[in-house]
Amino acid sequence: METINFQLPPLEAWVATIFRRAGLAEDHADLSARRLLLADITGVRTHGVARLPSYWRQLTRGGLNPRPNFEHTWSGTVLVIDADLGLGQIVGPKAFALALDALEPARPFVPFLIRNAGHLGALGSHLFDVADSGKVGFLSQVTQPVMAPEGAMRPAIGNNPIAFAAPRTDGPPLVIDFAASNVARGKIHVALRDGLPIPVGWAIGPTGRPTTDPTAALAGSILPAAGHKGLALAMIVEVLGGVLTGARPLLSEGGAPGGVGAFGFVLDPATIIGRDAFDQGMREWTRHYLAAVGDNGRIPGERAAELRAQAKRAGIAIERNLFEQLVQLGAEAGAALPA
Amino acid sequence: METINFQLPPLEAWVATIFRRAGLAEDHADLSARRLLLADITGVRTHGVARLPSYWRQLTRGGLNPRPNFEHTWSGTVLVIDADLGLGQIVGPKAFALALDALEPARPFVPFLIRNAGHLGALGSHLFDVADSGKVGFLSQVTQPVMAPEGAMRPAIGNNPIAFAAPRTDGPPLVIDFAASNVARGKIHVALRDGLPIPVGWAIGPTGRPTTDPTAALAGSILPAAGHKGLALAMIVEVLGGVLTGARPLLSEGGAPGGVGAFGFVLDPATIIGRDAFDQGMREWTRHYLAAVGDNGRIPGERAAELRAQAKRAGIAIERNLFEQLVQLGAEAGAALPA
Repeated sequence: METINFQLPPLEAWVATIFRRAGLAEDHADLSARRLLLADITGVRTHGVARLPSYWRQLTRGGLNPRPNFEHTWSGTVLVIDADLGLGQIVGPKAFALALDALEPARPFVPFLIRNAGHLGALGSHLFDVADSGKVGFLSQVTQPVMAPEGAMRPAIGNNPIAFAAPRTDGPPLVIDFAASNVARGKIHVALRDGLPIPVGWAIGPTGRPTTDPTAALAGSILPAAGHKGLALAMIVEVLGGVLTGARPLLSEGGAPGGVGAFGFVLDPATIIGRDAFDQGMREWTRHYLAAVGDNGRIPGERAAELRAQAKRAGIAIERNLFEQLVQLGAEAGAALPA
Repeated sequence: METINFQLPPLEAWVATIFRRAGLAEDHADLSARRLLLADITGVRTHGVARLPSYWRQLTRGGLNPRPNFEHTWSGTVLVIDADLGLGQIVGPKAFALALDALEPARPFVPFLIRNAGHLGALGSHLFDVADSGKVGFLSQVTQPVMAPEGAMRPAIGNNPIAFAAPRTDGPPLVIDFAASNVARGKIHVALRDGLPIPVGWAIGPTGRPTTDPTAALAGSILPAAGHKGLALAMIVEVLGGVLTGARPLLSEGGAPGGVGAFGFVLDPATIIGRDAFDQGMREWTRHYLAAVGDNGRIPGERAAELRAQAKRAGIAIERNLFEQLVQLGAEAGAALPA
């Protein structure tokens, strides 16, 4: 597949310009551009700049609010944030900043709920900063129904991703980010575009039967990871990020991009068990893990750190197809994609 | 397989007697017997009375403390419990009772850590009460390393189970309970006993290669559910339930049954979003789910409720093999298993 290479600084500046043209305040545009590209440069290409055309449409034609009025209240010890349909790349940092600010010795664990958010993008992208500040963080988000077990005639539940991060003293932060489905729906779109069948186990068609046809799969549902375990994980998130935030619009399938709900927390291990004890415990289990697994063993977050360093040196490659979409977006927004 | 049927009341009374003979206080013995059999009657037979001989050994010969001195402190808003190597069937109820008692409008979310606990058994067994009281609960626990990805020469991490419960107004509570591995190690023991091969995907041998030989599997590692997703889930629990509680002994493989660490929380949805809104939200997503999945759809917890009702009527069947172990245990403890 032909790709075009971009250095990060000009690409990031251009993405920020697009966000400004879409109506975002200067600081929000800059932050969103950095956060969006953080997904790309840590390996989550499906949730990076590939989403920019869709965000542009939602910001300029409805669905997302370019000038959100974030409000937060406390339900006792629980932080509750109304994101006013703000772009997820602003909502994520805002939520974690509020939660981290609230950490203190008398409150070393801050749970939070977010309602009316734009899709939070690559959940993990919001957690690097948390781990870099020495804290532990968790984030989960409900999505529209896209997933179902075999036999289902239509999508039953979101594939509700979760993400988690914790600092390490002998390696890059542990950063975990995965959805409850076997694969992302985006992979089926790619197969459709390329005219390829999909493997058995990815999806069922609208009849509820397994399919290898991407068109049937997109009319059906993606399958949960590990069967009932993936479904169960999605249900936990449905309660915490969905029911507790009143995230109703998600029940309308394939409908308008109503706000999503999310649940997360941050905690300060230094208060709870002590900095040294925490750091030592992290070193112990990760070393045990790596020694047992052998040469190919990796702690999640290590590959992201390598890719990030590489992208800073060499930039990132954008596929011809996406490149053309971005050129078109630049023309529409009056901000040409840099050559 | 030949089975012997037991009515619940005499079996529960006998289990309580065994626990008393093992040194437990009267009320702890009764509670432990109820909680242990709750696993059996809700379908988790691997973590019910089948574990009694092992608990007896640990209580009478070391590993578990029959007269634990539970202590709890607060690290700010986080409840920290030292279980003094108490039996998990007491530790679980104790932890949730403390956490539930601490819920109040100014504190609608109570996270807790448990250190030095006996294995908590069927995690879900500790969550029925939580949902019955209208609250939402979560529990996760680290186990000794038993799991690894393909290629690993020895177990790398626990299969660290998680459990979750939430009340429903139009059905039995949502109760979820699953481990991060494809199957429980107990299933491999059963295959070994019955002289049967195990399916590919359950385990790897000590060479790191997939195996269908239960002996090789038990000398190797069980495989994570959904590959890197199961590993990632186990790692989240390793940090929350392991590192934050200082649960060191788990790093010694196949060693002494040192205390385990656990992380959980309870929350009061009535404070956070309101009773009616919560109940309505639960009804909405579960109905949507069931309608999409069709006739075979189930919400986790529904089968447990049916099995429980059935066991109350008809008792439970115990396999000949286990029956003989229990007869022997009764003889050793001087409390004959009722006919």
